[in-house]
Amino acid sequence: MSPVKAEIISIGDELLTGQKVNTNATFICSELAGAGIAVERIVACADIEAAIAAQCSDSLGRADLVLVTGGLGPTRDDRTKKTVADLLGRNLVFHQETYDRSLDRYRVQGVKPSSSLRQNAMVIEGSTVIVNTMGLAPGMMIPSGSRFDDHLLVLMPGVPLEMQAMMKLTVLPAVTALSGSVIVHSHIMTTGTGETTIAGMITAIEDALPEGTTLAYLPHVAGVSLRVSSIGPDRQVVEQDNRQVVDAIVSAVGHYVYATRDISLEEVVGELLLMQGMRITTAESCTGGLVASRLTDVAGSSGYVDEAYVVYSNDAKMRLLGVDESSLVEHGAVSELVAAEMARGALERSGADIAVSTTGIAGPSGGSREKPVGTLCIGLAVKNLRSGLVRITTETFYSRSDRARNKFRFSEAALRMVWKELSSVEEEPD
Amino acid sequence: MSPVKAEIISIGDELLTGQKVNTNATFICSELAGAGIAVERIVACADIEAAIAAQCSDSLGRADLVLVTGGLGPTRDDRTKKTVADLLGRNLVFHQETYDRSLDRYRVQGVKPSSSLRQNAMVIEGSTVIVNTMGLAPGMMIPSGSRFDDHLLVLMPGVPLEMQAMMKLTVLPAVTALSGSVIVHSHIMTTGTGETTIAGMITAIEDALPEGTTLAYLPHVAGVSLRVSSIGPDRQVVEQDNRQVVDAIVSAVGHYVYATRDISLEEVVGELLLMQGMRITTAESCTGGLVASRLTDVAGSSGYVDEAYVVYSNDAKMRLLGVDESSLVEHGAVSELVAAEMARGALERSGADIAVSTTGIAGPSGGSREKPVGTLCIGLAVKNLRSGLVRITTETFYSRSDRARNKFRFSEAALRMVWKELSSVEEEPD
Repeated sequence: MSPVKAEIISIGDELLTGQKVNTNATFICSELAGAGIAVERIVACADIEAAIAAQCSDSLGRADLVLVTGGLGPTRDDRTKKTVADLLGRNLVFHQETYDRSLDRYRVQGVKPSSSLRQNAMVIEGSTVIVNTMGLAPGMMIPSGSRFDDHLLVLMPGVPLEMQAMMKLTVLPAVTALSGSVIVHSHIMTTGTGETTIAGMITAIEDALPEGTTLAYLPHVAGVSLRVSSIGPDRQVVEQDNRQVVDAIVSAVGHYVYATRDISLEEVVGELLLMQGMRITTAESCTGGLVASRLTDVAGSSGYVDEAYVVYSNDAKMRLLGVDESSLVEHGAVSELVAAEMARGALERSGADIAVSTTGIAGPSGGSREKPVGTLCIGLAVKNLRSGLVRITTETFYSRSDRARNKFRFSEAALRMVWKELSSVEEEPD
Repeated sequence: MSPVKAEIISIGDELLTGQKVNTNATFICSELAGAGIAVERIVACADIEAAIAAQCSDSLGRADLVLVTGGLGPTRDDRTKKTVADLLGRNLVFHQETYDRSLDRYRVQGVKPSSSLRQNAMVIEGSTVIVNTMGLAPGMMIPSGSRFDDHLLVLMPGVPLEMQAMMKLTVLPAVTALSGSVIVHSHIMTTGTGETTIAGMITAIEDALPEGTTLAYLPHVAGVSLRVSSIGPDRQVVEQDNRQVVDAIVSAVGHYVYATRDISLEEVVGELLLMQGMRITTAESCTGGLVASRLTDVAGSSGYVDEAYVVYSNDAKMRLLGVDESSLVEHGAVSELVAAEMARGALERSGADIAVSTTGIAGPSGGSREKPVGTLCIGLAVKNLRSGLVRITTETFYSRSDRARNKFRFSEAALRMVWKELSSVEEEPD
């Protein structure tokens, strides 16, 4: 069977005024690539009937699969639904289930339902409704009819979280069937280095990928996650090819790999804490609570987090955590000594088994010659569960970006230090 | 004169495999918007002759100005130059100045010139060469000839730094002359409700927008920001139209509006705290430090944040903030009474002037019939700067989403309560 060809249409003026980067299209492309479906064109067009109709018509004429995002909400600049219905010569019909679902959302929040909910629940005749688990506007999968050789049209909202959930839960399973192949994905999660470094370490592997196996880099602020996708008719071959590539990459990238599943660093840290029966606390200056927030992003984190300290000012560092004034004066707040005292103080006051501290300069100002913006000192205090003795280690980390990225990378560096500690402990013989 | 219409064509397979986000197009759009040129379409297509030719032909047929990025280098998957020359029926001619310039670059870097430099210096007959100050490949501005009504075609490399320099130094000055128009953008930032509700409140205004003025909704997790854009030949008229629409929307949307600039809620809160000389602290259970983290996302937040408390367990709530055990037992950790005691405790222990607390159920589990997942109790303790008396207020908020979004909305609700408190204080007569 011939490969499925897809086009993406992203609707929204904000994409054309330079106010928003089209990350939706990139997300859809990488998901489809993993499903063995090639995207041949991405078009961003304005929220204007004529433009939407013309583009949908062009794309449906060429591609087996056309995915449209944006313009599904009930607001005036959301014209996609009506325009597509007209293009296909269909009516909009009321979808009770969508309406009830939206009423529920309002009921739970105790808000008076908006008058536009009925409008929101109108869907294109003959379409399969895609449930929106993250918001109000329903998505639709529509066989486009004989005029367009029944090429499949998929409509999704432009809100990234809503679109992403629809892609993963409904659209991918449906379109994967179109490609008629077995598909296996594996993830390799890394932390502590960038795309370029990783790419350099696995050039040879990339050059020798088995046929049907593709590699995608999914870079994020603090690291890179690699997705290895294998596609083919025979499950056994597909799984074997996939496993071989994953193993090769893991041994090449080595200590940057924190997981071979699609899981966050804070989730891995949480699993290790539970496994080892340890409780964690944080003492945060420059990260301002971000490390604690990431730890508690994980469901069930109450199993290992009781409390955490944000100590932004020197006074707070002394008063809440017993940091020595002399250390602050002689070494400065951004120093490994102060980081060590913060970690020790947090460990003692909280009764936790491991404490991580951060003190640094996120920027944009506050840097100096010897301590430039982007400098972070991390302290780690760990209680030996057998002897009860406390061991303290410190580390200095540098990031060179804007305040927001520096802050996130700081939190990642702190979590990474915790992860390394816990994974090494894990390997100790009992 | 009629407004100039532009289209952007981004060439490169990496855009279609999900490996690269198309930030070049976004940059070009925002630069053109500033020059009063509206982009009507952005197309990303593969590095294939047929695709490039077809797309350039389509776009030149529609738009006065077509900007193409990518595929200009000398490597074999860079086919743009040759393809466009064929499409326009022109030859490639040798451009001595480009060749000499590229030789210079090599000489300076002390590297042996690459054999592909002659190929690199070939440009399309009849084009104005755009000097590449950041790299080797020359850009081109080409009147497309009678077949395309002489619409202007601009070719630039895909390397962001090279493209950006060409845009700023050469292309913008050239195309700005094409546009007689002025563009004004305004922002209206809201919090506490969704796109649907806002849309319902401003239907009448949307129906009566002056010509040349458009309204865009930019939804995010916790609210909606509205962008009002006005375009026209006369700056005074454009600014007046824009201001009138903004004023109308602000009075219609009322208390959901927290700013009429593109600014975050935490930045507004920070400005109010500085203005009123108040210091803030947080006492966070379910938000796990996210409120403190958002407050300290703002540069200069050390001007109003000393410390904050993450009290995840009941024991921590009692030990660190003096919450009554009886309150926890009789009312439960998720109750307005406990939220009130957390806020009071944080205010007293920190010496801050305002304290906000959060206790709730982010999910996915932990809910009950009377306290479903998504329930948040917020406490606010405020010290009257004159009398020194502490006033405590509480609020219960509901969200209904996944853990991550509930948590973010919880943090937004807490910041919103602080913002409302500070902005009302602000209105008090002194």
